[in-house]
Amino acid sequence: MQSDTLCHPDVPSARSIATVSIATVSISGTLAEKLRAIHAAGFRCVEIFENDLLYYDGTPGDVRRIADDLDLKIVLYQPFRDFEGVGAERLARNVERIKRKFDVMHALGTDRLLVCSSVLPDTVCDDGLIVEQLGVLAEQAQAAGVTACYEALAWGRHVNSYRHAWRLVRAVDHPNLTLALDSFHTLSIDDPLDEIETIPGERIGFVQIADAPRMNMDVLEWSRHYRCFPGQGDFALAEFTSRILRAGYRGPLSLEVFNDGFRGAPPAATAADGYRSLLLLEEQTRALTAGVAGNEELPLFAPPAAPARLTTQFLEFAVDAASRTRLVGWLEKLGFRRAGQHRSKDVTLYQHGAAAIVLNAEPDSFASSFFQQHGLSLCAAAFRLDDADLALERAARFGYVPFTGRVGPDERVVPAVRSPDGSLNYLVNERSGQPTLFEADFVLTDVDGPSEVGPLIDIDHVCLALPMGSLDSWTLFLKAVFGLQASSSVVVPDPYGLVRSRAFCNRDRSLRLVLNASVDRHTAVAEAVQAYHGTGLNHVAFGANDIFRAVAQFEQAGLPLLRIPRNYYEDLAARYALPESLLSRLRAHHLLYDRDENGGEFLHAYTETLDKRFFLEIVERRGGYDGYGAPNAAVRLAAQTRRRREDAAMS
Amino acid sequence: MQSDTLCHPDVPSARSIATVSIATVSISGTLAEKLRAIHAAGFRCVEIFENDLLYYDGTPGDVRRIADDLDLKIVLYQPFRDFEGVGAERLARNVERIKRKFDVMHALGTDRLLVCSSVLPDTVCDDGLIVEQLGVLAEQAQAAGVTACYEALAWGRHVNSYRHAWRLVRAVDHPNLTLALDSFHTLSIDDPLDEIETIPGERIGFVQIADAPRMNMDVLEWSRHYRCFPGQGDFALAEFTSRILRAGYRGPLSLEVFNDGFRGAPPAATAADGYRSLLLLEEQTRALTAGVAGNEELPLFAPPAAPARLTTQFLEFAVDAASRTRLVGWLEKLGFRRAGQHRSKDVTLYQHGAAAIVLNAEPDSFASSFFQQHGLSLCAAAFRLDDADLALERAARFGYVPFTGRVGPDERVVPAVRSPDGSLNYLVNERSGQPTLFEADFVLTDVDGPSEVGPLIDIDHVCLALPMGSLDSWTLFLKAVFGLQASSSVVVPDPYGLVRSRAFCNRDRSLRLVLNASVDRHTAVAEAVQAYHGTGLNHVAFGANDIFRAVAQFEQAGLPLLRIPRNYYEDLAARYALPESLLSRLRAHHLLYDRDENGGEFLHAYTETLDKRFFLEIVERRGGYDGYGAPNAAVRLAAQTRRRREDAAMS
Repeated sequence: MQSDTLCHPDVPSARSIATVSIATVSISGTLAEKLRAIHAAGFRCVEIFENDLLYYDGTPGDVRRIADDLDLKIVLYQPFRDFEGVGAERLARNVERIKRKFDVMHALGTDRLLVCSSVLPDTVCDDGLIVEQLGVLAEQAQAAGVTACYEALAWGRHVNSYRHAWRLVRAVDHPNLTLALDSFHTLSIDDPLDEIETIPGERIGFVQIADAPRMNMDVLEWSRHYRCFPGQGDFALAEFTSRILRAGYRGPLSLEVFNDGFRGAPPAATAADGYRSLLLLEEQTRALTAGVAGNEELPLFAPPAAPARLTTQFLEFAVDAASRTRLVGWLEKLGFRRAGQHRSKDVTLYQHGAAAIVLNAEPDSFASSFFQQHGLSLCAAAFRLDDADLALERAARFGYVPFTGRVGPDERVVPAVRSPDGSLNYLVNERSGQPTLFEADFVLTDVDGPSEVGPLIDIDHVCLALPMGSLDSWTLFLKAVFGLQASSSVVVPDPYGLVRSRAFCNRDRSLRLVLNASVDRHTAVAEAVQAYHGTGLNHVAFGANDIFRAVAQFEQAGLPLLRIPRNYYEDLAARYALPESLLSRLRAHHLLYDRDENGGEFLHAYTETLDKRFFLEIVERRGGYDGYGAPNAAVRLAAQTRRRREDAAMS
Repeated sequence: MQSDTLCHPDVPSARSIATVSIATVSISGTLAEKLRAIHAAGFRCVEIFENDLLYYDGTPGDVRRIADDLDLKIVLYQPFRDFEGVGAERLARNVERIKRKFDVMHALGTDRLLVCSSVLPDTVCDDGLIVEQLGVLAEQAQAAGVTACYEALAWGRHVNSYRHAWRLVRAVDHPNLTLALDSFHTLSIDDPLDEIETIPGERIGFVQIADAPRMNMDVLEWSRHYRCFPGQGDFALAEFTSRILRAGYRGPLSLEVFNDGFRGAPPAATAADGYRSLLLLEEQTRALTAGVAGNEELPLFAPPAAPARLTTQFLEFAVDAASRTRLVGWLEKLGFRRAGQHRSKDVTLYQHGAAAIVLNAEPDSFASSFFQQHGLSLCAAAFRLDDADLALERAARFGYVPFTGRVGPDERVVPAVRSPDGSLNYLVNERSGQPTLFEADFVLTDVDGPSEVGPLIDIDHVCLALPMGSLDSWTLFLKAVFGLQASSSVVVPDPYGLVRSRAFCNRDRSLRLVLNASVDRHTAVAEAVQAYHGTGLNHVAFGANDIFRAVAQFEQAGLPLLRIPRNYYEDLAARYALPESLLSRLRAHHLLYDRDENGGEFLHAYTETLDKRFFLEIVERRGGYDGYGAPNAAVRLAAQTRRRREDAAMS
């Protein structure tokens, strides 16, 4: 509802005091581009991944100078593979090999080398021999003035657990051989975490951090392609990290992420998300280390807490006169009524139950520029919470951009933060005894509030259609700024490709959001994103207490519902023992149906698409149903595709 | 070298006489689109995948009418899940559920239902109970006048092998319950194939065929996302299929392919490849069933054999005057000399050793239209073989488009077949005692042949940059038309994403080809494809006997070599115990080095890119090295990226 100035204030430092780092392999680009992006994101430490150096057309000394100029400390060079568990001749060659790497490290100005447990099929699986050879490694490292950090790869031939690696390192008992821990290698194989705290902190030489979605696949492939930043996957990283800190480790926490998507994405944005992800991890870790003796002083990132209470106050659409007319027509058919007019701007408020929609047609405003770029679109959402200033500070400390708009006389200044797609999230204080935002900024048509009760109760959820590859960035945004919980993502087939979908909500389910990103170029979601030029509302779902009553009323008013194939109901009848009376009512109103394991039920209907670009949904949740009708998503996508085809054939 | 007319002759029927079929899930689109594409590809049988029906906005009777109109027989409805191994109450519900599906089948006009082994965690793992319940199923099927085909899913809770499923089906011993076989479920778990031939053919009710690349991952995920058509993956499908035919099965061979790429690709092209893939499978299967008693009469696809002998005669570039000048400049630096001028066209021949390059600037020709679309590009390749007519017939019977160009007086008519990207493959008969193609069509400048021996010996391989998602289609083309063997694909990192690469060769390695397709949008390969508007030569590699001599000569002549970072050589020194003298020579000439397990060596150098779009490679193979220096591909991609950046910064 605000406008004009995108403000770039002096963002309070998002800097964590713990040492955060990132491996160059985690982002795309040439080595110089990577280092610049890593610096710009806020990192002051970096791991050099060997291949990045090999591909770099300059000496290791050149790399050191670039890093120095960027105030980046090279904290690790990696990886060195297959040193131990070999015959005498091979050991001699490995010593020659590692000496050359020590030379590279000297030129780079780093003194830590990551040594991975051997994966050679002919590794000699003899702990005694390995201890002896790691001893040779440690002596060589000492002679070169560096430290070797020994890491158990989850797919190591003989050593694949940090516990085994630690037994070996402890047996070698040499100051130049330490243990390296990597969250992926430990959490991917469900290795027990208990022993971490038994390791003296100073014997842990380095800690690498990666998250990953839970996947049922070969751990090497999983590691090489699907790692992601903390908070984007499913691993219990705070559990892992807090134990390491409790053990007394005080060195870098360093992201090492192999991710196919990140390899193809712009490095600056990826590095910025990486930095945020470590802040989020620190915050979560702090909660677990608080109160532990010796850990009070831990300098972990401590932003204001995520808002405890969070509800949607309104959704704001960027419109012009023509699209407003169309949208208002639909809202009126849904029983919304005009509830107010903004005091100074061409902004109108519509309400139905607790659902409020704001239509912004103000010229020369944020909304109008959003409209110019994206057409009729969701340009903002407003959230009611207890302390907007703290929420804004939290967002800013995570490095998200605050926004302050133009404000008329006597109008409320509402802080806002930008979503990854540039839309706004207003943070609204509502305190009892004070005028509401609507009262402050709007001339309300009905000051006593709605007198009749309509069939809709609230906004159940919003579903956004995103460009490919942006799910991870949104996940981090929603977790960091709003403290939302993420479900695991699911893949839904569309007639022309696949759509990846992930749901988010807060603890009391008063805020729900679904993000859809297409894997292919021709799905309904991809076409919506293209139509919106890179951003796109997909749909808004309104909650109803009695969906049959609601839908009957809306159809009566002329709201066009998306036609669901009769075959769907035949299958429904076969899947569930639904009474024929219910089945026929579902069929008559084009309602979809889902049931969860506990008997909770979900009934929902979709409208046709408005303006070929977005649509509405009406939902009823029964018996604690907590999902979004995922089994029906493919039915909806197919029905929408059919309609697009019909429209295309007619035009 | 030919021109003008793209000819669509009356292609000899590619129809196999065996019954080939495809499941609707294998291709993209709405159900009606799928059926039309399946018909157009040549199929006369189809499986209806249940979800396609559920999403279809018409009755099963409507689907039957569409299929009838297209002369498509619906040979199966699938899948029915989790019938058996349940309690009494659930069984009763399952009987009600399956009766509804029988009604759907009647309306569809099909009498086969695929029933998958149960995946429910609480499946009762009791063969006696399952036999009893499958007996109930069989009786219900009999009452409905249909047959249930029971299939073991590789991830079935209790039944996951065809051998177990067959024991159960045999125990039920009912004509309305047969066994369904699926190549994926059997080959993915390396289930022994021996028992297939012990099953009476008439007890096998249906056979589904899918190939897949070998992957180390959860079999369910592998099945749902990575299946592909026969010949595109790594499975021994002819072994599987020949055993089924030897068992006496004479029903459909039906493709059932879940592939993320196919879900997003145009349905007509995918269905056409599916049809071809079954022809190829039939041909391969025929070789394994020949001579087996009772199988001589098997009506399997029998095209002319793939060419036994196959060498590249020349590569033809579409050029205009300016790009010809540039390319000729490079060829001359590589020691090529002008060897002939076409008798009637603006076409020039350059030769060096056995490597021949044709530059086609003829106006109003195939080459000129190729040039208009793609710029300087590889528009054709000519292959010497024993019987060009048979090779052309083979290609045509696989449904690939033959091409006949405009021919001048006394010039040779050279048959050709189009590649998936529209470029031509000339098929050249060279018989002793007859004039060569060059003698027939060109005024040769040196009729006695080359007098001096240059450092190049031949064209070692060609590497093509392909659009995303076209690797599978090319794989099938190269296997079907030329009988090439495919290596497994590898993934190579580029600074801005990943590139998937697959190598092809014939048995005697006289023809080698590498295909690269980018997974992301900003890699060097992707940019090359964009520059070429959807097709693109990546590079041509020339073979040398003494690469040091060759490269020294070329550098002396001013050929610009791609600069390789010195760090690469530091690492090479660490990886291999190379003598410093060799290392320094490699480094001096920007040569890359690889070594195989048997000590075979590969030395290679790249030129800078010509016209920002393609480049050349010089290679030397030592000691039977059979690869392409895959470990060095990332070094090359990074070096090229650096050069693009430098060029961009300068312009």
